[in-house]
Amino acid sequence: MKVGIIGITGYSGTVLYTLLAQHPKVSQVILYGSTQETQMLSERIPALGKNDIIIKPFDVKNIQQETDCLFCATPSGVTGKLMQPLIDSAFPVIDLSGDFRLRSEQLYENWYHQKGRQLSPAHKITYALPEFTTNYTPYIANPGCYATATLLGLAPLAKAGMVEAGSIITDAKSGVSGAGKNPTTSTHFPFINENLWVYRLNQHQHIPEITQQLSDWDASLQQIQFSTTLLPITRGIMVNTYAKLTQPVTQSIIENIFTQCYAEKPFVRFRGAQLPTIKEVVGSNFCDIGVMWNPSTKIVTIVSVIDNLMKGAAGQAVQNFNLYFGFEETVGLPQFPLFP
Amino acid sequence: MKVGIIGITGYSGTVLYTLLAQHPKVSQVILYGSTQETQMLSERIPALGKNDIIIKPFDVKNIQQETDCLFCATPSGVTGKLMQPLIDSAFPVIDLSGDFRLRSEQLYENWYHQKGRQLSPAHKITYALPEFTTNYTPYIANPGCYATATLLGLAPLAKAGMVEAGSIITDAKSGVSGAGKNPTTSTHFPFINENLWVYRLNQHQHIPEITQQLSDWDASLQQIQFSTTLLPITRGIMVNTYAKLTQPVTQSIIENIFTQCYAEKPFVRFRGAQLPTIKEVVGSNFCDIGVMWNPSTKIVTIVSVIDNLMKGAAGQAVQNFNLYFGFEETVGLPQFPLFP
Amino acid sequence: MKVGIIGITGYSGTVLYTLLAQHPKVSQVILYGSTQETQMLSERIPALGKNDIIIKPFDVKNIQQETDCLFCATPSGVTGKLMQPLIDSAFPVIDLSGDFRLRSEQLYENWYHQKGRQLSPAHKITYALPEFTTNYTPYIANPGCYATATLLGLAPLAKAGMVEAGSIITDAKSGVSGAGKNPTTSTHFPFINENLWVYRLNQHQHIPEITQQLSDWDASLQQIQFSTTLLPITRGIMVNTYAKLTQPVTQSIIENIFTQCYAEKPFVRFRGAQLPTIKEVVGSNFCDIGVMWNPSTKIVTIVSVIDNLMKGAAGQAVQNFNLYFGFEETVGLPQFPLFP
Amino acid sequence: MKVGIIGITGYSGTVLYTLLAQHPKVSQVILYGSTQETQMLSERIPALGKNDIIIKPFDVKNIQQETDCLFCATPSGVTGKLMQPLIDSAFPVIDLSGDFRLRSEQLYENWYHQKGRQLSPAHKITYALPEFTTNYTPYIANPGCYATATLLGLAPLAKAGMVEAGSIITDAKSGVSGAGKNPTTSTHFPFINENLWVYRLNQHQHIPEITQQLSDWDASLQQIQFSTTLLPITRGIMVNTYAKLTQPVTQSIIENIFTQCYAEKPFVRFRGAQLPTIKEVVGSNFCDIGVMWNPSTKIVTIVSVIDNLMKGAAGQAVQNFNLYFGFEETVGLPQFPLFP
Repeated sequence: MKVGIIGITGYSGTVLYTLLAQHPKVSQVILYGSTQETQMLSERIPALGKNDIIIKPFDVKNIQQETDCLFCATPSGVTGKLMQPLIDSAFPVIDLSGDFRLRSEQLYENWYHQKGRQLSPAHKITYALPEFTTNYTPYIANPGCYATATLLGLAPLAKAGMVEAGSIITDAKSGVSGAGKNPTTSTHFPFINENLWVYRLNQHQHIPEITQQLSDWDASLQQIQFSTTLLPITRGIMVNTYAKLTQPVTQSIIENIFTQCYAEKPFVRFRGAQLPTIKEVVGSNFCDIGVMWNPSTKIVTIVSVIDNLMKGAAGQAVQNFNLYFGFEETVGLPQFPLFP
Repeated sequence: MKVGIIGITGYSGTVLYTLLAQHPKVSQVILYGSTQETQMLSERIPALGKNDIIIKPFDVKNIQQETDCLFCATPSGVTGKLMQPLIDSAFPVIDLSGDFRLRSEQLYENWYHQKGRQLSPAHKITYALPEFTTNYTPYIANPGCYATATLLGLAPLAKAGMVEAGSIITDAKSGVSGAGKNPTTSTHFPFINENLWVYRLNQHQHIPEITQQLSDWDASLQQIQFSTTLLPITRGIMVNTYAKLTQPVTQSIIENIFTQCYAEKPFVRFRGAQLPTIKEVVGSNFCDIGVMWNPSTKIVTIVSVIDNLMKGAAGQAVQNFNLYFGFEETVGLPQFPLFP
Repeated sequence: MKVGIIGITGYSGTVLYTLLAQHPKVSQVILYGSTQETQMLSERIPALGKNDIIIKPFDVKNIQQETDCLFCATPSGVTGKLMQPLIDSAFPVIDLSGDFRLRSEQLYENWYHQKGRQLSPAHKITYALPEFTTNYTPYIANPGCYATATLLGLAPLAKAGMVEAGSIITDAKSGVSGAGKNPTTSTHFPFINENLWVYRLNQHQHIPEITQQLSDWDASLQQIQFSTTLLPITRGIMVNTYAKLTQPVTQSIIENIFTQCYAEKPFVRFRGAQLPTIKEVVGSNFCDIGVMWNPSTKIVTIVSVIDNLMKGAAGQAVQNFNLYFGFEETVGLPQFPLFP
Repeated sequence: MKVGIIGITGYSGTVLYTLLAQHPKVSQVILYGSTQETQMLSERIPALGKNDIIIKPFDVKNIQQETDCLFCATPSGVTGKLMQPLIDSAFPVIDLSGDFRLRSEQLYENWYHQKGRQLSPAHKITYALPEFTTNYTPYIANPGCYATATLLGLAPLAKAGMVEAGSIITDAKSGVSGAGKNPTTSTHFPFINENLWVYRLNQHQHIPEITQQLSDWDASLQQIQFSTTLLPITRGIMVNTYAKLTQPVTQSIIENIFTQCYAEKPFVRFRGAQLPTIKEVVGSNFCDIGVMWNPSTKIVTIVSVIDNLMKGAAGQAVQNFNLYFGFEETVGLPQFPLFP
């Protein structure tokens, strides 16, 4: 198969390239830029080495002729404008951006502060958290990094109808690569090093993405109290979720529910009461999850960790690619984290 | 005044020494070790320079003769055993350890996993969070680092009776210096660097310290869901506390309550909706606090930050020292953080 | 005394302000900005707290009327343009920038890539490395951070004529705060975290500053091989200097020379064969130095460390201020590093 | 092929396992511990996941029966004692430790402070820096991390006889994973974070390893001035080497020599005057090298970077494994670094 990538120079695009270039089912990776000039990959990202791969100008027709599938690793706002022809023609697209994750146009405008996309009801888009997606459409909205870690942590109890509505509080933390490649005051090393920064509190665009999925699982779960903290690390997300439950439980009951839910899922490693750390998944597509029931407060704490650029972006995109095209779910993805 | 320190070689003791050695009301700092041998400070901690200060063996009688006040920067378990004679004789002691923070012997044994102290009801000890302490006894239990940041964040609303019982969830994070000076697997650089680690979940010994104080302020507040995460930074604590309130509020109402509560408190800087970062207080005795009301979820988020070795240990000890002896509250404490 | 600062919003200016605002000989600090608008300090740097200090527009006449001394913490190129009237009128200025460190106009243009200053021979400027400065003029050029650490490491042997010409190789490393407050690709956290970056090799503007001073001490020392590496830390510089010597030595002979040279210098702590680490000086004005003679290679290794914002900038400026005005050299400067 | 590993719980052993478990030419990896008890891999290193691989007791006979090749990732001192039978029987061993790198027994004892090995002249051991090794013996001494980066940087000029004897000065820096998995005071996070530490100056055991190889290339190169600095990062080494040359050169002449030397070497990426950074190789087996000639000082600066656990240990071991058994040199090794 031949695959295309747009947005190679961003962090997600770079990681996506390194995965697809080594993917046994991919014969060629073709790169497209957002500008009209041709660039050399080796000049833009020397770490990827001196292969003479060019970054071509973006052109919808060329993409459909040259590739079998397009990955979009562009900032929000780009695919909403550019992808309409590919959606119309049912060309396979895996979109890592947030543009098509929300079903509601109004929610998109409210949380992304951008004009909505113009979709007719006929346009089919799959929001694909791969552990829970069975029917794929050609256009796949790859979940957001925070949403992935939060939803995988909540899924077993939420799908079982065990989470008390209005009780979910999520304290999520992310490494700085999640903020992208452009230098800003909050990614300036002397600012965030030896520091923590709570940002976009109650305003993060992953909030409606999470509640959209949660309420699909359990219609009573319409709300989440959600905070995001920038960490002085490059890669990785840790999400602590606290919730009350709708029925009496024990640690053992909760562990059984998680174990069963993820028994067949190769990229979720349920760790029981052993709470995972971020480094145990960095460089891999794993989501590690631990849980702890507190019988005094009647609150369950769920700790889930991912590599934001892998399971939170490029790795999950490849996982969706594998599932959509019928390959083995794990092919082309590393079996281990980069550890230590 | 002459002051003594035991526990100089630990991090809190070292910081305490640097503060007291430059304190304008302190003429001499005398150091006591826990062993019987005499040591040179310059050999134990070269960063403090080549002054020829000795660390004397610990001796209660000498301390009472040579000093006007003793600071204890020892691990938990030490002062519970050693301080009885000084308590009996009403000698001024500022104890940075956890040994005398809990009024209940039983709670102490449950959470510290140590034998309780043998105190009679006549023995007076003050748990002294200085912003809210008016009557000092000679023996002062300096609050714990997590407890300080959590309690200062909750105090305005808790004292106003506005916090809904059972609704408090605290997600607290600390730099590694909080774990002390002894190398362990969890303080090993390759483990905690680029990582986060949730530890002692539901078992941290500051939990009963927090609920003891909270229930003094509002008897309905008997519980707190409390998690602690180790951060890849050296100094600093950030505490996110989430709570529901007992009455309808707005952001402005909440801000007014905090502003009034801390108007006269020199070391608490209330920042309104501007959420503070850790680096803004490191090196200082400040606790910076920001709040954000979420009208959708009806949950208030309180973010409080301190330097765990200053406001969370040595700085607060000096603040208590100043207040107990009638000095100006801020004397001998830096006016600014080390920034950047 | 009343002092003025221009450049308060940069890192050196911020640290300078925190030192001068607590300096016992300074009654008032007046802030000047480079723009014509008035700003509030608390809005620009919230970490400094809610004091209502304004940043006034820059005005030479006002400065001369309102202050007794001006500190310039501006980027290179600013004081070269603005300070002429103050130089002409012999008004005390302590200039932290590089504009007046080099005596040669030509060297300044070559290394700073800026037009030279227009100085007549009558204009007196002191390049003031305070440990070796005896005659101060009102206009003081405060040494650069790398130059300070390198020169203090080399001074004892260079002044003794013991360094072999052409043999000096310096491998210098600096924290990111040395690159200033503006975000760039090289200060972006995901770039420099977990990384090292050799920059401006053979082109750093501190090279001619170092050789100017070295050749003053020993006319044969006209060259230095000098590299600079950006470190994933916020504050601090470590300089490793390697050199051959002009005569047979032992470790003990070398240690004696350093000990004698710095016996009376309060801010240089010679550590003998115990090589210093950066953290032992961060937050302080100390330069710690260790040396190691290698009898096999006949090369001496000198390791010197400073806090680039203290001894490398603001702290040394205060030290020069103290010396120029006849105060005790150490007044207003912390006695200890922030440790750990 | 079936391969064995001893020392799986150390960092090099862990990385080796992740490489070999995914290596297309390896059908099975069998783990041996140094104790007599059987352990589960998942309990020792949870990050590697829940596969039920056991760590068997070490037994020479079993190893020879069960495997085709043994990798030793043990501390120095272990293989010197245990490997004699395997050397005697010409069983393929790739030894990542330092025990057999030095040909001289005396040098081994002097630098490793251990009793020498008992080898007869008939015992053949290859010190295998793979870029320059043509004849392999079954027993392969895998080079040290510092030695690899230093030698690859110096090889082109040294082999051309262009390096001036006595002029080599190397300033090497390493991440903390190089110090191993056991917590010590110098790997304690609050010590090394935001710090640099020059250690074992003039005493590092890689010095004789480097000069042994250098003098093989050019008999005049018997000495190197070599310093090692611990960095506040987990993985990666940067080596700056400074040297004078024996003949007049230009930047272009030097670049040509490097380009030619490494034209056919898949894991050395010569970058010309673009100096590499550590992160560009972390997670990969690459050694990136940049050079800069200084016409003023007549000194060349060579900057070489590797991942100490990959090209400096486990990756290079796999590279040697590939070459020894006649596989393609790059098989089983990632084509890209983990970037960012």
